[in-house]
Amino acid sequence: MLWGRNRIIGKTAGRDKEQDSAAVKDRGQTPADFSRIYSKDLLPAPGGEEMTRGFLQELVNILLGYISKSSQRSSKVLDFHHPHQLKEECFTLDLPDQPETLEQILVDCKDTLKYGVRTGHPRFFNQLSSGLDVVGVAGEWLTSTANTNMFTYEVSPVFVLMEEFLLRKMQSIVGWSDDVGDGIFCPGGTISNLYSILVARYHFYPEVKTRGMGVLPQLALFTSEQSHYSVKKSAAVLGMGSENVFMVKCDESGKMIPAELESSIVTAEEKGLVPFYVNATAGTTVYGAFDPLKAIADICHRHTLWMHVDAAWGGALLMSDRHKIKLAGIERAWSVTWNPHKMMGVPLQCSVILVKKRGLLQECNDFGAEYLFQTDKNYDVSYDTGDKSIQCGRHVDVFKLWLMWKAKGSEGFGSQVNKCLENAEYLYDQLQRRTDFELVLKNKPEHSNVCFWYIPPSLRGLPPGPDRDAILHQVAPRIKGRMMEKGSVMIGYQPLGDKVNFFRGVFSNPATQQEDVDFLLDEIARMGDDL
Amino acid sequence: MLWGRNRIIGKTAGRDKEQDSAAVKDRGQTPADFSRIYSKDLLPAPGGEEMTRGFLQELVNILLGYISKSSQRSSKVLDFHHPHQLKEECFTLDLPDQPETLEQILVDCKDTLKYGVRTGHPRFFNQLSSGLDVVGVAGEWLTSTANTNMFTYEVSPVFVLMEEFLLRKMQSIVGWSDDVGDGIFCPGGTISNLYSILVARYHFYPEVKTRGMGVLPQLALFTSEQSHYSVKKSAAVLGMGSENVFMVKCDESGKMIPAELESSIVTAEEKGLVPFYVNATAGTTVYGAFDPLKAIADICHRHTLWMHVDAAWGGALLMSDRHKIKLAGIERAWSVTWNPHKMMGVPLQCSVILVKKRGLLQECNDFGAEYLFQTDKNYDVSYDTGDKSIQCGRHVDVFKLWLMWKAKGSEGFGSQVNKCLENAEYLYDQLQRRTDFELVLKNKPEHSNVCFWYIPPSLRGLPPGPDRDAILHQVAPRIKGRMMEKGSVMIGYQPLGDKVNFFRGVFSNPATQQEDVDFLLDEIARMGDDL
Repeated sequence: MLWGRNRIIGKTAGRDKEQDSAAVKDRGQTPADFSRIYSKDLLPAPGGEEMTRGFLQELVNILLGYISKSSQRSSKVLDFHHPHQLKEECFTLDLPDQPETLEQILVDCKDTLKYGVRTGHPRFFNQLSSGLDVVGVAGEWLTSTANTNMFTYEVSPVFVLMEEFLLRKMQSIVGWSDDVGDGIFCPGGTISNLYSILVARYHFYPEVKTRGMGVLPQLALFTSEQSHYSVKKSAAVLGMGSENVFMVKCDESGKMIPAELESSIVTAEEKGLVPFYVNATAGTTVYGAFDPLKAIADICHRHTLWMHVDAAWGGALLMSDRHKIKLAGIERAWSVTWNPHKMMGVPLQCSVILVKKRGLLQECNDFGAEYLFQTDKNYDVSYDTGDKSIQCGRHVDVFKLWLMWKAKGSEGFGSQVNKCLENAEYLYDQLQRRTDFELVLKNKPEHSNVCFWYIPPSLRGLPPGPDRDAILHQVAPRIKGRMMEKGSVMIGYQPLGDKVNFFRGVFSNPATQQEDVDFLLDEIARMGDDL
Repeated sequence: MLWGRNRIIGKTAGRDKEQDSAAVKDRGQTPADFSRIYSKDLLPAPGGEEMTRGFLQELVNILLGYISKSSQRSSKVLDFHHPHQLKEECFTLDLPDQPETLEQILVDCKDTLKYGVRTGHPRFFNQLSSGLDVVGVAGEWLTSTANTNMFTYEVSPVFVLMEEFLLRKMQSIVGWSDDVGDGIFCPGGTISNLYSILVARYHFYPEVKTRGMGVLPQLALFTSEQSHYSVKKSAAVLGMGSENVFMVKCDESGKMIPAELESSIVTAEEKGLVPFYVNATAGTTVYGAFDPLKAIADICHRHTLWMHVDAAWGGALLMSDRHKIKLAGIERAWSVTWNPHKMMGVPLQCSVILVKKRGLLQECNDFGAEYLFQTDKNYDVSYDTGDKSIQCGRHVDVFKLWLMWKAKGSEGFGSQVNKCLENAEYLYDQLQRRTDFELVLKNKPEHSNVCFWYIPPSLRGLPPGPDRDAILHQVAPRIKGRMMEKGSVMIGYQPLGDKVNFFRGVFSNPATQQEDVDFLLDEIARMGDDL
């Protein structure tokens, strides 16, 4: 029952002794008594300073305990409950009319973490974003305490300058010269990709801003069949229609085939469409494949198409001297998506769209609201960059990245990336060696994605073919289900093209070591042995 | 020099003694020595627990100091520097190749706060979002420590359930019955408004998703001339063209005139456009005006138009029994934008779009990426709500709102709103009483916006007219410039329609008291006396 149900029952009859002593043990100190304290007693209430300090210290103890546990291999990655169980047995979601005590608030915080997923755990392989960078977390704590907005220099002087600085830094790493380049931090890679299509459309057809798509020809977009779904999603949002996104064929390793791009462009034109935009992917979601950027750039140049590179996942490799060669040609892109919240380990969210043509974002998006963007201010209003955005208010996502960069240096990010790719190679080597697993791709991974099937004993004798596939398709989901229930490790799976459900190992967590890779494979084998 | 320049000079020659002793004094305890500690020494490094605890404790001391100072009237609202000064004299933005020490990182944190704007200061009147709610900040600290993503139940079980719960709660407060309603948390009110247009378009023309705007008639949108610029901005993004947004005339107090809406609809039809969407504003940005929702709902009903209510700013009044009447009719809207990060005081960002037609968001936006939204999972996948979004990864914005609601209760939010509106009435009363100020609107404010001119002595004799206006137009910017330099208070100004630059007082900070209102007026008078 300890922390097991977040509603403190019988508060008025005194506190739960067991809980109290557990709390003391957990924190290694005597807890303050918050059973009669409410949020109204905190700052800005007169004399609220001591209470505020005590409450936040108590919270920080909880968070420190969580961070510490998340890095321990002996702790679970998650404590799985079905939605109805969480709602009925573990957690009181109900919101009261009257305030609850701060004691209850702290219990709620503890329970929220207890029933969540430890994405920083060394055995969390489930997402492209993982890990828990302490300096990044510190940056985010400061950001939320500063509680301001990116629209003007007036209310965010330091953060606006940091954004300008980091955008230039990232542009230079991409390989653009000093006199070009612009960009903005976005709420996620999908929105960054949306920006790329938005500015590309405006670049070719500036009249679209005022007059709409009705005065434009029917436009065609191109992206690989293994690219992220955000290109289709954004085309739908922007009023271009998802069917006008041509899905270009990939080779076996998941790279776009340049000749297929050429022929897709011809097909589109034959249908009466006007090609204008190509998305090349640097690091696909499932295979981690890098499209051949130079060949694609040549085609874009020949046809005068906007070349975007979705390096949401692969952009981190630019930080590594060893691996940046995989993105050669990215400097020829007209726009680039790069998500530091993926392999660079910045806490969510931190995504950037870079645009080569300076001023385009502003021209495309500005509507100059006078209550916000006055031109008669006492400072240089070119720093009021909020009107470059499709948002108005915009969360400060830059500070944690800036702080982490200071703390690691560029070389620290490089080593982090190298380490992730070494882990991937290690997994690949192990999979080659073992007979109970099968690699989806035979070649050494270029990124940190390694895709594989577990082949249970019952399937090992069967010849490849539809019968075996039908059973194999169910293996990964069943193992994943058991994995969730046990909570010892987390990894994703999916089918792709003609390939039935397989696991996708990805490494972006600096906490992960080779022993975790060994554990992953052994645990899958243990869980799937009877299938 | 103390903390004055964030680069510690001569680190190798020993620490700056003056700085050290100031740090000790500031924190009231002996600081740990971080001059030889780097981020690589923190968790997940083996044995990094103690260092992690020490570093985060040190950071929390800095943040607590900031929170405490922000609530003190004796401290400045901001320490203004021009961009070039900040970059050249105060702050080293440069990012190194090699890591910096954690000592430097803590100095950077301190400086970032020092040169920022204290949006929680009781005398910060500059934005619709202000204040610093300690429980909200706690919620955000936990959110960033949990560092997960809203796309699936799998990685965000608790937060996904909280979102579902809060959306239903907010729908019921809007007045929708239990069997309708849907919604999603968005990165800001502009994106929420964008969603409203997106789903409205899909509702009437579902083929737009695959085929694009080319197969649709030329659509027309309607919003008041005093509404937020996000309607135009979103229309441009969505490929509808900003000139197809009809700006409906308002009455003197800033409310949309229903008869003008009717005639705009006729005008649009005469031009061959097809009206489909009306945005009514509940709380305009400058005047805080509430459009007549019932009359607009009648018109929308008659013409079968989607009715959206942008209650980004006014939605908070739904929490107050005394003031919710001002939004009567909102229950007839088909979608509603509501930003808890404004008057409800939730830390940025926290915005919600509510949509009456359940399932529409999902149908409009889903592209069912199989690597994320597998249908063969071990739990009820209807909780995987990520594909309702136009994003993919999505920041967890719900927790801080949920936690604050627990801590305050619904009634706590109600009192907070009442308090803000009482402050506005007090400002209004003072302005009526004083001869050195002039109200822009004669009537008592409906929301917490109170707009006014300061009339310097030199202008008091002049008759109203263009000559006086030309001078008056420069008064607010000049006072604002002085205010920024002095840092004692912050308030925004803008022109509107035929009205020259005036100040806009807004109240959304629970820290603000009547004495701060008095200070604001006296300070403006002091600063403008010689103009």
